Amino acid sequence: MEHRLIANLKENYQIIFNNISLLEQAFTHSSYVNEHRNLHISDNERLEFLGDAVLELLVSRFLFQTYPNVSEGKLTKLRAAIVREDSLASFAKECEFDQFIRLGKGEENSGGRKRASLLCDLFESFLGAVYLDQGLEVVEGFLAQVIFPKVIAGAFSHEMDHKTRLQEVLQKAGDVNIDYRLVKEEGPAHDRHFWTEVYCDEVLIGQGTGRSKKMAEQAAASDALQRLEK
Amino acid sequence: MEHRLIANLKENYQIIFNNISLLEQAFTHSSYVNEHRNLHISDNERLEFLGDAVLELLVSRFLFQTYPNVSEGKLTKLRAAIVREDSLASFAKECEFDQFIRLGKGEENSGGRKRASLLCDLFESFLGAVYLDQGLEVVEGFLAQVIFPKVIAGAFSHEMDHKTRLQEVLQKAGDVNIDYRLVKEEGPAHDRHFWTEVYCDEVLIGQGTGRSKKMAEQAAASDALQRLEK
Repeated sequence: MEHRLIANLKENYQIIFNNISLLEQAFTHSSYVNEHRNLHISDNERLEFLGDAVLELLVSRFLFQTYPNVSEGKLTKLRAAIVREDSLASFAKECEFDQFIRLGKGEENSGGRKRASLLCDLFESFLGAVYLDQGLEVVEGFLAQVIFPKVIAGAFSHEMDHKTRLQEVLQKAGDVNIDYRLVKEEGPAHDRHFWTEVYCDEVLIGQGTGRSKKMAEQAAASDALQRLEK
Repeated sequence: MEHRLIANLKENYQIIFNNISLLEQAFTHSSYVNEHRNLHISDNERLEFLGDAVLELLVSRFLFQTYPNVSEGKLTKLRAAIVREDSLASFAKECEFDQFIRLGKGEENSGGRKRASLLCDLFESFLGAVYLDQGLEVVEGFLAQVIFPKVIAGAFSHEMDHKTRLQEVLQKAGDVNIDYRLVKEEGPAHDRHFWTEVYCDEVLIGQGTGRSKKMAEQAAASDALQRLEK
């Protein structure tokens, strides 16, 4: 399992662990430790404790920066929707982490590999391990691939989808042509940044930057909305 | 009020803000903003949202590193005790932050300046402002002065006080002489580190380091306990 996991992390998320035993610990459920006491290994629970807090900070920072005009109340609701159990479990599955967790036999037979609470804990313990091994910015780069684009696309709150809202606002007065143009992209593949401009009937109304084309477009739409509201 | 606050932060915590308006925002309650709409200022609620997550991560990291052999369950309980409302309110009062918060008249008259929930929010929004202005490590330095020594001293969980536990363990077999010796201190005043050794009847049984003498002694006691338990 280990080689496939290492290859998965490298290929999909550009993450290369220095301390492989930390990665192994993140993927070790307590039921496995209980059945292999002779191995003297640790389960992933302490890493989950740490990863939970790392996730909380990075999601908060992202929301704080991405939505400069949104109230604390809405930000708190949005954060809760992003970090809740079934959201994190679905991220873990999307990353195929469920294939790599080491479970005890009883846990395996009772369907633990598909259980949301177990997958949620696994996702957090993975983040804790990446944080210890690679630091906060590498965890952020991972979340910028796995979570943040979904937030920007409105997966956790429709009203946060700026492109949709901009369209609604602009088309109130009748049909207009809204056009997003990629004007620059820069940086290596794992840390690429995109700059986008949004035009309404050929008039520049907003600019934005982000770690993907979609995120840059959403940022440009958000910028346009702020200018329109002034 | 502003000058006294700035002096307080500099003298007591070696914190010098670059962006004073962030500091002002952290000390501005929504009731003040509501009564001064003409000033176009922002309240501290968004900073509180961010500061809450910064505190969560730094407390988690501190506990994770300080107690390498404590279970996730105990760490979670301890973290909850440290970041709960009345704890944070008492830290805010200890730092004299209650003197500097800007309140609306109604809030002032109804005793808001002494209300635990308001002081707790203030403490978190201050951390959010320090984080944005100075970065994570400066917030950690502040917590290392205001919160961590209390944790180490067992203020939130008696069983976490290593010096008390070491004494209990060693004196089970009769009276012994336990001696903590400061062997090194290094670094500038705002980032000083201490190294301590603990001796039992003149035999070296543990070593520890920390950001204060007390914390180094607790770390040495923890180290001794781990060696004894092996």
